[in-house]
Amino acid sequence: MTAGIYASRLGLKAFLITRDFGGQVAKKAVDIKNYPGFKKISGLELVQKMKEHLRVQDVEIMIDEVAKIKKKGKEFLVRTASKKEFGSKTLILATGADPRPLEVPGEKEFLGKGVSYCAVCDGPLFKGKVVAVIGGGNAGFETAIFLKNIAQKIYILESGTEPRAFAANQKIAKKGGRAEIITNAVLKEIRGDKFVNAVIYEDKKTGKEKELKVEGVFVEIGHQPATAYAKDLVDFNERDEIKVEFETCQTKTPGLFAAGDLNTGPFKQIVTAAGEGAKAALAAYNFIQKKARQ
Amino acid sequence: MTAGIYASRLGLKAFLITRDFGGQVAKKAVDIKNYPGFKKISGLELVQKMKEHLRVQDVEIMIDEVAKIKKKGKEFLVRTASKKEFGSKTLILATGADPRPLEVPGEKEFLGKGVSYCAVCDGPLFKGKVVAVIGGGNAGFETAIFLKNIAQKIYILESGTEPRAFAANQKIAKKGGRAEIITNAVLKEIRGDKFVNAVIYEDKKTGKEKELKVEGVFVEIGHQPATAYAKDLVDFNERDEIKVEFETCQTKTPGLFAAGDLNTGPFKQIVTAAGEGAKAALAAYNFIQKKARQ
Repeated sequence: MTAGIYASRLGLKAFLITRDFGGQVAKKAVDIKNYPGFKKISGLELVQKMKEHLRVQDVEIMIDEVAKIKKKGKEFLVRTASKKEFGSKTLILATGADPRPLEVPGEKEFLGKGVSYCAVCDGPLFKGKVVAVIGGGNAGFETAIFLKNIAQKIYILESGTEPRAFAANQKIAKKGGRAEIITNAVLKEIRGDKFVNAVIYEDKKTGKEKELKVEGVFVEIGHQPATAYAKDLVDFNERDEIKVEFETCQTKTPGLFAAGDLNTGPFKQIVTAAGEGAKAALAAYNFIQKKARQ
Repeated sequence: MTAGIYASRLGLKAFLITRDFGGQVAKKAVDIKNYPGFKKISGLELVQKMKEHLRVQDVEIMIDEVAKIKKKGKEFLVRTASKKEFGSKTLILATGADPRPLEVPGEKEFLGKGVSYCAVCDGPLFKGKVVAVIGGGNAGFETAIFLKNIAQKIYILESGTEPRAFAANQKIAKKGGRAEIITNAVLKEIRGDKFVNAVIYEDKKTGKEKELKVEGVFVEIGHQPATAYAKDLVDFNERDEIKVEFETCQTKTPGLFAAGDLNTGPFKQIVTAAGEGAKAALAAYNFIQKKARQ
């Protein structure tokens, strides 16, 4: 959205293709308190404000998903999931990251039947129930904090010896006693009938498998960049993140930029993604100006 | 301010030393329309919102100016203009940039007596008068746009053959006929009695000097980073900007970071500076955590 705002204000003909608006921000389980200028704002509200901001600019928007990008001569070609094709002088990739799956038996089978990657979307369905959050990082604890007002009991399963979340998040989650943290717990299977009724995990200290009776499983073990469509034109690191030169967010292909959570930047924050969106649009503008002078 | 918000939220003991709040943003001559989340906001208002945001965090703030930084063992030492000294494990430099002076006769002499580096601060004093804006970039044109409602006539002097401002800014400035652009004009001298009454410029096409009767001179020829205090610990480029590794904003000295307009980043934007402030604080947090484990 920031790249769109900038591109339009720079007088470029900006075309934005997106599956939805806001990505992870729209699904944020707790209020956002670290986007400068807003002391406290919900993810949905911030996305709404940015959408309004985008809409006062002259950006053409299409709801679709990019399936493939390639280069043909000096032009970039974009093919979408709905088989439409577009050409452009530059491209800014800002497709963010999707939740990383557990890849255990039962996960796909019970998706939408107890398994969720978004507490804000699905949490209210688990009123008074016992649920498990898989992952003891900040996202896992924020999910537990969100679920405290809904679920009867929340188990947070962390595979390491210690939760990785900030102390402040751990403190809030533990308050009231509804959330219980289980460390050294490696999830092995999600079981159920029509709906989830248990998870099986291995206790790494003893090597034994244990069962927890739960009706919901919230997966919060991180995100993986949504970048497969770009593979012919960019280099990846070992986590499939796109390598860029961070001064301008340019990839190895001149005129092709990658801003936000999909690149190798170590800090996946809203304001860092916005800053990179602005950099990429300004660099795209310079790229087009330079080409025009050649 | 963003680095302060982040450092505090990360549980670090954050201490912020600053001369003032907002720097160039607070002095912006036109409304800000490119900080994502706010369709349109004045510079002062945005600074106010960020200040409020900072103040709900646990950041100790001191109004002072940093005179010198150095390293002593593992610690950074900061000496201020008021001769106070502080030690810290990491330092984030975010002192931005100051207006670049013309360095012509009369500039220092008539500072505050017709010469200004801030139209928002001083513009209202020139109601109904004839003024010159020196510099035909975006800042110069934005200053002219601001002054259109105050001054009787505005000359914009640009040393190059063409104004460098975006087309949109040029169009708005020209509308109504109060602003006149003079290209190939190199400022040579500011003259006056008690107050400014003229500027002398060289017309590069003819080599001749010309005089313009003006009562105000607004200098908008860019900014220079406020970085002299750091010279023993960082590398500079040819414009005295601090070299950093843009993934984390770290300088050549481990634990020392530089975020915003004072580093070599090509795009001096509010949202890019905020993004870098967040990156620097997160990198500082990682630096401290790593040291603690050693």
